[in-house]
Amino acid sequence: MRELRFDPIRNRWVIISTERARRPSDYTIAGVGAHTDGKSLAACPFCEGSEEKTPPEIFAIRSQGTKPNSPGWRVRVVPNKFPALQIEDDAIRYGTGIFDVVSGAGAHEVIIETPDHNEELGDLDTDWIKDVLFAYRQRIRDLFGDYRLRYVLIFKNHKAEAGASLTHTHSQLIATPMVPPVVKQELTACRENYRAKERCLICDLIKQEIDFGARIIHETRDYIIWSPFASSFPFETWILPKHHLHDYSMLSDNDLRELAPVLKLLLNSIKRLLNDPPYNFVLHTSPPRFKRPGQPQHWDSIESDFHWHIELIPRLTTIAGFEWGAGFFINPTPPEAAADYMREDITKLIEVRRVI
Amino acid sequence: MRELRFDPIRNRWVIISTERARRPSDYTIAGVGAHTDGKSLAACPFCEGSEEKTPPEIFAIRSQGTKPNSPGWRVRVVPNKFPALQIEDDAIRYGTGIFDVVSGAGAHEVIIETPDHNEELGDLDTDWIKDVLFAYRQRIRDLFGDYRLRYVLIFKNHKAEAGASLTHTHSQLIATPMVPPVVKQELTACRENYRAKERCLICDLIKQEIDFGARIIHETRDYIIWSPFASSFPFETWILPKHHLHDYSMLSDNDLRELAPVLKLLLNSIKRLLNDPPYNFVLHTSPPRFKRPGQPQHWDSIESDFHWHIELIPRLTTIAGFEWGAGFFINPTPPEAAADYMREDITKLIEVRRVI
Repeated sequence: MRELRFDPIRNRWVIISTERARRPSDYTIAGVGAHTDGKSLAACPFCEGSEEKTPPEIFAIRSQGTKPNSPGWRVRVVPNKFPALQIEDDAIRYGTGIFDVVSGAGAHEVIIETPDHNEELGDLDTDWIKDVLFAYRQRIRDLFGDYRLRYVLIFKNHKAEAGASLTHTHSQLIATPMVPPVVKQELTACRENYRAKERCLICDLIKQEIDFGARIIHETRDYIIWSPFASSFPFETWILPKHHLHDYSMLSDNDLRELAPVLKLLLNSIKRLLNDPPYNFVLHTSPPRFKRPGQPQHWDSIESDFHWHIELIPRLTTIAGFEWGAGFFINPTPPEAAADYMREDITKLIEVRRVI
Repeated sequence: MRELRFDPIRNRWVIISTERARRPSDYTIAGVGAHTDGKSLAACPFCEGSEEKTPPEIFAIRSQGTKPNSPGWRVRVVPNKFPALQIEDDAIRYGTGIFDVVSGAGAHEVIIETPDHNEELGDLDTDWIKDVLFAYRQRIRDLFGDYRLRYVLIFKNHKAEAGASLTHTHSQLIATPMVPPVVKQELTACRENYRAKERCLICDLIKQEIDFGARIIHETRDYIIWSPFASSFPFETWILPKHHLHDYSMLSDNDLRELAPVLKLLLNSIKRLLNDPPYNFVLHTSPPRFKRPGQPQHWDSIESDFHWHIELIPRLTTIAGFEWGAGFFINPTPPEAAADYMREDITKLIEVRRVI
């Protein structure tokens, strides 16, 4: 069973996916995933030489002359072995009484960031990180061609406490037959601001924040690393492109080359400063603009009123009853204080690199 | 610093509260709270005889003739020693550039459910649980008189993995100067349905679900225990009153007496079936109806279009990047299957009780 169900009371879709079917006895305590196989090098399906342990690859950046599903790759994308949604399913929409259902058409892919079991994303050199960012872009571009899909979300879970089921460094992609609730909220906020002011909300915000300074952690020619004014979590950090663009998949190779060292700096700073915490990051970009011939467009505009960005949270606090029951987050570290700590650390990181 | 900040991109308020101020080195790994003092009996501030270790009590159910802040109580309510929001603060609303802030007026209280360190809420007899439910009602009634407050949320965190910082069984109350996002969503859904149909959304849902049956776990004269159609989490379970009422604080003593055994059954079933998991529950009820003289009403209606209920989630899965970045939850146990397991277990529980 893979289907999306609409919750009419909380006004949101939920994915019911029994691909990893669970009876009561299958659950261990919270925070410890059931799928932590592959911890050891020998069993790891993401290592070079173990390509046959994954479903066939969808995309790879590999040395000239090497064959798919064989060694010789830098970055490799494969379907998730336990997909929450599957590309083979049809997006059939139907009602059952007062409830609504969509069958679980979508995609669930794994972006293996390196063949080396012992490296983390932040350890890779900037050119390699650029290749990972390139793989993100290519997969989004490809999936934007599937008319059933309404969104493509790229995210990364680092460590088991943040939801990673395998230790070998990887990102994930889930494409869904509707725009996810949090993304829809952001798209709507940007849309409404644009309609009222003919300006991008996030462009306005970036200008104000650079002028103010206290929440800017780092600034390059093209990007800022920002401690959000209303951070939901301590040390939550966003990477924002200074130039307006709604769609990550439209970035050029040069844009990705500029982004790579910014992401590397952020990951290394989080690791140093917070003692290598579990973390998640997500890429928020605009939905696909393609539509089925004769069908209404998915997201009703030129779509360029959004501003793509990356949101990262180190997993430092427990999400308790108040957070999920109220939707209110309690953050014990003021974003300005977090920015001070991280700015200082990043300054040191850059100095160290210069010396070396 | 205690203030609420509005996130204009995600359209939600966040509480920044440095009462438990945190530098980078203060954080341990996710899922392990920093405030796990009081694990041992001697250090526990919630035990009988340790009343001086908490701030002075706000409310208590105690034996005749015993004095406040002394032994002799069954249920005791005290201010949280590390409040996220504080009643002494003023609810001052102001803007800073494109951002909005409200200073952190509110309340953060602890409902100590029993003086016995080793009992859990589900272990208490139904009359005692009724007293806990009575304390909830009295605190909501009292705080509804404070014109600065827009909502009073009661919730319970069971075990550290669910956010409990002390093991001695207790619930919490947070009152906020605005309606929390998830609650607002539910209020809005019920409001819109009522405006369109002049019927309560949740009353409609209850009727349909009782007719259908597959997601009803247990039914008494006044309540159902329900496995929600679009459960966000495996074994998520709601207690819904069959008779329409928007406001928990309007329940009679008899209503609470009927609710107590239903809550006890649910807690014991979750404990047996899922190997005593961490859990959270929240009470969703309508906002206060009172207003400051001459001010517009907080929630613009007769407010009776909502339907109070309790939502419980066992904490069995990790909240990963996809969940917080997308707002999509992936639930690996179909609600109908969860209902089957729980229905069977509750039937056994009732049989056992009858035999004893």
